[in-house]
Amino acid sequence: MTETLEDPLRPYEEAVALPGAFQAGLWFIGRIRTPWLRREDCPKRGDPLHGPDCLIEIGELWTPGLHGIDAHQNLQILYWMHLSRRDAVRQNPHNIAGSTGTFALRSPLRPNPIASSLVRLIAVEAGCLRVRGLDCVDATPLIDVKPEFGAFWCDTPR
Amino acid sequence: MTETLEDPLRPYEEAVALPGAFQAGLWFIGRIRTPWLRREDCPKRGDPLHGPDCLIEIGELWTPGLHGIDAHQNLQILYWMHLSRRDAVRQNPHNIAGSTGTFALRSPLRPNPIASSLVRLIAVEAGCLRVRGLDCVDATPLIDVKPEFGAFWCDTPR
Repeated sequence: MTETLEDPLRPYEEAVALPGAFQAGLWFIGRIRTPWLRREDCPKRGDPLHGPDCLIEIGELWTPGLHGIDAHQNLQILYWMHLSRRDAVRQNPHNIAGSTGTFALRSPLRPNPIASSLVRLIAVEAGCLRVRGLDCVDATPLIDVKPEFGAFWCDTPR
Repeated sequence: MTETLEDPLRPYEEAVALPGAFQAGLWFIGRIRTPWLRREDCPKRGDPLHGPDCLIEIGELWTPGLHGIDAHQNLQILYWMHLSRRDAVRQNPHNIAGSTGTFALRSPLRPNPIASSLVRLIAVEAGCLRVRGLDCVDATPLIDVKPEFGAFWCDTPR
């Protein structure tokens, strides 16, 4: 797996000195299994209609929380982008002159590197959800699963 | 503000013994100001079209991250539901016979109580975002702001 925490900043990018203490803590409630073993292999954006099946493994403690999830076709997945540096406030993702604020980007580099993906639920298996629409690296830590009511998918070429 | 961490479980609800150590930490990057001072006053769901203006105050360290955000009309806001107990895996939100798994609900009670809201950006002010569509209690801690590309709003009665 690619370790990027030490990646140097690009031209025009700006980082801050991070605060010391955290204000809240997260438990990883599971792990996401995908076909992409390195960050550079991941697609730019997940495809809930035509993307490959991925497996969301739920930790044993939390599996009672899956009861009734099969009633939902669309799920929102929150996960922790564990390979991302957290101190970049201005970024230059396209490597051109100038930079953009982190909060105006969906870049994985952010103070709290939490990603949100909308996926389609394909099947509920033993302690696992089979879904389509993810784009993260294999073994990414899972933070939350919620039903998604507002999503819609268009089955048209991109 | 209502403190609910000690709220008793309802009939049919189930809690687990929480793990000890956290696996990741969060910084609160700001604070959300809303008209609702108690949880019981909050609307069930935010309304990005007709809801009241709310203010997202960004901590001074992070304000360079706002550069360019005015290019986006729709934003995704992640915040920390600091009043929610974290150990409920089966819940009975409607107080009827039976329960539903936490991951099949958007209830604030979840292992990692992170909420995700889609809002409309009304204005960028000094270190603040004026938005519509939130439904959280005043002074809720902010975790992240991202541009939202998939959202659409229907201006029809609910």
